[in-house]
Amino acid sequence: VGDFTERGLIDRIQRRLPKAPPWLLVGIGDDGAVVEPERNRVEVLSVDALVEGVHFDRAFVAPEAIGHRALAVNLSDLAAMGAAPRLALLSLALPGGLPIHDFDGIVEGLTGLAVRHRLHVAGGNLTRSPGPLMIDITVIGTVKRRQALTRSGARPGDDIYVSGTLGGAAAGLRMLSAMGRSGDGGSESVIQRYLYPEARVRLGLMLARNRAASAAIDLSDGLSDGAHRIAECSGVGMVIDADALPIEPDVRRWFADLGLDPVSEILAAGDDYELLFTTRPRSAGRLRPARQHGDAALTKIGICTEEPGLTLRSGGIERELRRAGYDHFR
Amino acid sequence: VGDFTERGLIDRIQRRLPKAPPWLLVGIGDDGAVVEPERNRVEVLSVDALVEGVHFDRAFVAPEAIGHRALAVNLSDLAAMGAAPRLALLSLALPGGLPIHDFDGIVEGLTGLAVRHRLHVAGGNLTRSPGPLMIDITVIGTVKRRQALTRSGARPGDDIYVSGTLGGAAAGLRMLSAMGRSGDGGSESVIQRYLYPEARVRLGLMLARNRAASAAIDLSDGLSDGAHRIAECSGVGMVIDADALPIEPDVRRWFADLGLDPVSEILAAGDDYELLFTTRPRSAGRLRPARQHGDAALTKIGICTEEPGLTLRSGGIERELRRAGYDHFR
Repeated sequence: VGDFTERGLIDRIQRRLPKAPPWLLVGIGDDGAVVEPERNRVEVLSVDALVEGVHFDRAFVAPEAIGHRALAVNLSDLAAMGAAPRLALLSLALPGGLPIHDFDGIVEGLTGLAVRHRLHVAGGNLTRSPGPLMIDITVIGTVKRRQALTRSGARPGDDIYVSGTLGGAAAGLRMLSAMGRSGDGGSESVIQRYLYPEARVRLGLMLARNRAASAAIDLSDGLSDGAHRIAECSGVGMVIDADALPIEPDVRRWFADLGLDPVSEILAAGDDYELLFTTRPRSAGRLRPARQHGDAALTKIGICTEEPGLTLRSGGIERELRRAGYDHFR
Repeated sequence: VGDFTERGLIDRIQRRLPKAPPWLLVGIGDDGAVVEPERNRVEVLSVDALVEGVHFDRAFVAPEAIGHRALAVNLSDLAAMGAAPRLALLSLALPGGLPIHDFDGIVEGLTGLAVRHRLHVAGGNLTRSPGPLMIDITVIGTVKRRQALTRSGARPGDDIYVSGTLGGAAAGLRMLSAMGRSGDGGSESVIQRYLYPEARVRLGLMLARNRAASAAIDLSDGLSDGAHRIAECSGVGMVIDADALPIEPDVRRWFADLGLDPVSEILAAGDDYELLFTTRPRSAGRLRPARQHGDAALTKIGICTEEPGLTLRSGGIERELRRAGYDHFR
């Protein structure tokens, strides 16, 4: 990375970090960080890696967007558990030829998002990569013990909701790949959905605080995958209404113009980082704070059933909803 | 990785893990792990990555040794902070062509060491790598607040100690590279020092419990680097006695046979994962438990001084001890 030492690169990260909070007793610069746990709360931990050539293409994703996404995917996991972000550890494997300007951009995208969510970078690791750029982030958040959202709390009769809109990230990625970094000709707002995903942290907190959700997951690997996972962990079936899926007009049009069925695409489309969650019908009123002050609109898209299996209903016709989505190893 | 799905690979990891402890409220299989913090202790967090082609060569390091080392380097950071290991998150980036047997071997090496140190794997991430194998591990340990060892507590007059012996890992790596995976002709015990480094967890705990050490660091990047870091963080100078450095006869002979000065090699040699620490002279008695029940012999190798700078003394001759060691970016 340019002609910088490890120490020099760490300095460039530290320079962008706000003052350490009082609970961070020892920060960057020792063998480990030392942290005072938060009283009366449990910790939620998650790790996610972004690998060049697997999760992004440096040819048309700017360094700031790479850094942003690397942290957003982790924040999304905290959101799905109803946890408030607290700290992160960054582990970066950097190709020798990475320009220092790109390094700074990645750090900028990452720390910018961290500051917005009051997440503190407590430590990390830098190493050289003889291959792709890799960004591995561990995040820790906190939540009251009885409020943590899991995938296993759904019951037959629960309503199924999704936040925001679906398929935007997948459509944005296709636009970018088709047209190169500039994205000319695509929809700017759709492309931004891919480049700068927003983790639904505030929504997750609101669903957890008044126990509005019985189960939750983030849609990192698409709606079909998320629905199957909640169904499996909770031991329920689901009927999902294809006609109710929230899809932006630009996204619907883009898929249709390519001769693709928008619904099929959206079932398998990852990277949206919206929340899929279930709610007891009698708790519907508890969704009001989330609707009024959450990050995104909420749409009811189906219902949990006693009968196992997932069904997709569209215009009165029902068909089995097969598991679709991205498996890195298939 | 063979023809396995992500789920299949995760199953192969879980199968090797002991029963989850009661404080692990939600383990592998949700968006995040949920953990009950330990009362009256602070948390020590560290992350370290092992990258094929940078930190190890698959041609002569067996999968079990790769998995072992990936965790050992992290445990060593906890040891240097005086923390008791608690949990780990694993993030693996796997080349498509990795045989499932090698995957199992890596997991075996890793979980075997985890079990020995009562460290629980609470979660992780698997992804494909289009390039090298990468293993990124985050560990969390706990320690009483006033007992955490840092790099910044040394004062002028403090004695400087090192655990075990030095240079074994570097010599072992040279033996292996020279002779291929079998290591024929090299010293088996020296090669094991490279392949299966032992983190000095028990020693770290003992130094922390009765506050025997005023500062500590692990020697991941060599003695010179470690000494400079403690000196810098503590604002002291150091005089180190080259003739006192604990070097195994096999190691000394191996370097000498190559026409190399053992002391110079050892100052820059990384991968030993011994602890370097300082002790107030009046606290020397507090080292007794560590000497009797710690993992390794302790050797006094120098003293901290008021005058800044590091000096190496040998046979009555003093010279400046320059900073040497491995920088991934130089």
